[in-house]
Amino acid sequence: MKQAHLIPLLVLASLSAGPIAAQDIKAPAPPPAPSPGEIVAAAPASDWKDIAADDLLVMTLAPDAKGKPRTVLIQLLPAPFSQGWVSNIRAFAKAHYWDGLAIYRVQDNYVTQWGDPEDDDKKAKKKPDGLKEMAESEYEAPLAIMARTAARAALPDGVGGREYGASSFFIAGWPIASAIISEHPIKDAKTGKPIPASIEQNAWPVHCYGMVGVARGQRPSTGDGSTRYTVIGHAPRHLDRNIALAGRVIEGMEFLSSLPRGAGAQGFYSDETMLVPIVSVRLASDLPAPDQPHVQYLSTESASFLKYADARANRRDPFFLIPAGGADICNIPVPIRRKP
Amino acid sequence: MKQAHLIPLLVLASLSAGPIAAQDIKAPAPPPAPSPGEIVAAAPASDWKDIAADDLLVMTLAPDAKGKPRTVLIQLLPAPFSQGWVSNIRAFAKAHYWDGLAIYRVQDNYVTQWGDPEDDDKKAKKKPDGLKEMAESEYEAPLAIMARTAARAALPDGVGGREYGASSFFIAGWPIASAIISEHPIKDAKTGKPIPASIEQNAWPVHCYGMVGVARGQRPSTGDGSTRYTVIGHAPRHLDRNIALAGRVIEGMEFLSSLPRGAGAQGFYSDETMLVPIVSVRLASDLPAPDQPHVQYLSTESASFLKYADARANRRDPFFLIPAGGADICNIPVPIRRKP
Repeated sequence: MKQAHLIPLLVLASLSAGPIAAQDIKAPAPPPAPSPGEIVAAAPASDWKDIAADDLLVMTLAPDAKGKPRTVLIQLLPAPFSQGWVSNIRAFAKAHYWDGLAIYRVQDNYVTQWGDPEDDDKKAKKKPDGLKEMAESEYEAPLAIMARTAARAALPDGVGGREYGASSFFIAGWPIASAIISEHPIKDAKTGKPIPASIEQNAWPVHCYGMVGVARGQRPSTGDGSTRYTVIGHAPRHLDRNIALAGRVIEGMEFLSSLPRGAGAQGFYSDETMLVPIVSVRLASDLPAPDQPHVQYLSTESASFLKYADARANRRDPFFLIPAGGADICNIPVPIRRKP
Repeated sequence: MKQAHLIPLLVLASLSAGPIAAQDIKAPAPPPAPSPGEIVAAAPASDWKDIAADDLLVMTLAPDAKGKPRTVLIQLLPAPFSQGWVSNIRAFAKAHYWDGLAIYRVQDNYVTQWGDPEDDDKKAKKKPDGLKEMAESEYEAPLAIMARTAARAALPDGVGGREYGASSFFIAGWPIASAIISEHPIKDAKTGKPIPASIEQNAWPVHCYGMVGVARGQRPSTGDGSTRYTVIGHAPRHLDRNIALAGRVIEGMEFLSSLPRGAGAQGFYSDETMLVPIVSVRLASDLPAPDQPHVQYLSTESASFLKYADARANRRDPFFLIPAGGADICNIPVPIRRKP
């Protein structure tokens, strides 16, 4: 109907004796702007990066009430971030430490937590030897200014940037923050000469939805990696630099986010029958080759990712009226897929 | 043990012939800084505001698999925001429109949606007469600069402020955004005189966790309020000004956020047995007096709220090492309680 209505108008305009007003010329409508999902679907294979099997944990939960299997994939954080905790987590997985333990805390708009539900240290499951003890200073890691600047410069206007008194950006597929650096060249106060771009400042991973951290007791405890949590609500950025992140859920998040919330303080399950048993947690590299999942992330340094981030920050697909003109770093989830 | 060890050091210092170094004097430790929860618990009764029964919806879902009742309380948005949709929602509730309908969409890290699961308009439930048709322009509402400035000035440094190409702040208990206004006094370009603070600019409510919106079809549809959703993940701020918000969940959020995610596209339940039946939705003011819930929110203009917001942005309670120095508007959930 719309198309039929359009033709007579065009005919009338072309018959007009006077100049044709610009608004009377109906150019063919431009194709609708692609949605973020369409941009990701169109990304070339070269923009996708394999996640190494040694960086991938496969957590198998007991089947749900209807007998449906529940498998969660967790990607571990790369260097230079949290590597001591990541090393411990690999040791726990190799020792089959989590097998038979459980999810025992689900706090709405905050975290789902798993590990040993046993409070009594004497009855708790034995941990593997040789675990690393991590200092609080290791919540942050040095990162070359050059690497950081390169990553930041690439993001579209309004994406990430100044948040929570810090700069936020992506590196190698991860949401990262660092101290804010002046937009102007940094000069040595005494000599007035520019400071070389290789100077290192600290950066840290960010508590976005699905990120996996290492629970701990009161300070100065930093946690050994035996007890972990994932974010199931709005990004609790106040935890950044106060607790170690060690990875993120990249598949099966719905099995952690949709669990009933605990009735105890801070969402702990006060009713033991609510515990969700963990059948096993394995490094993908320790599984037989045919059982290893092959997963990829969209390179955050790729042209496709920048286009995707821009489209998340400025929705122009037909549903939308007003592009936001920006997005916080946690509203740009890094696309993940099974390797085709 | 620590206490016993401290005494000899103090004794030694007092025997010293030279001046006592400041670091040798052990002043009693200051009491630990209160947590956000402790600040809210200590708020005087006068800082709490009643939510009117006419602004409160009581949604009763069918009991869960274990027979446990599920009740959700939704507070409706006050003027000047979304009042046409809010008026329609009251009309739907009075007509018992939602009774017997269902939750039929749960998309992880996005929304839970309810209304009529029937696709066929001919079979769909009849809607009440006299519904208002809302224009897209009504996603925003005029707000006096004075009101906005007052609210913004009160927030601690780093809380809200510049986000998503807009300013964010609280008014009357709600997270609100508006166009960014210069920090400097605004002057008329021709006369150089300050522009009166009564000039109005548009503002809009913000898609934080738990906010309730009005689903709609493709533009120019704005939705009539029959189909609603709540945010169950990280704040999808790209929806601001693109879809009407009409309220927020203030109790029973866990019954909407912990539902199994739908297997269909965009989280729609492809399996009809997963539908969650809605028993009834009533305005609290239409319930018999003894059944009306009495709920309060912490005034966002109160001293207690400012202290709470500051503590959310700068955690100084014993668990924390580094205060963030800021918080986005959606990481400062407005405290709600049953009236004591």
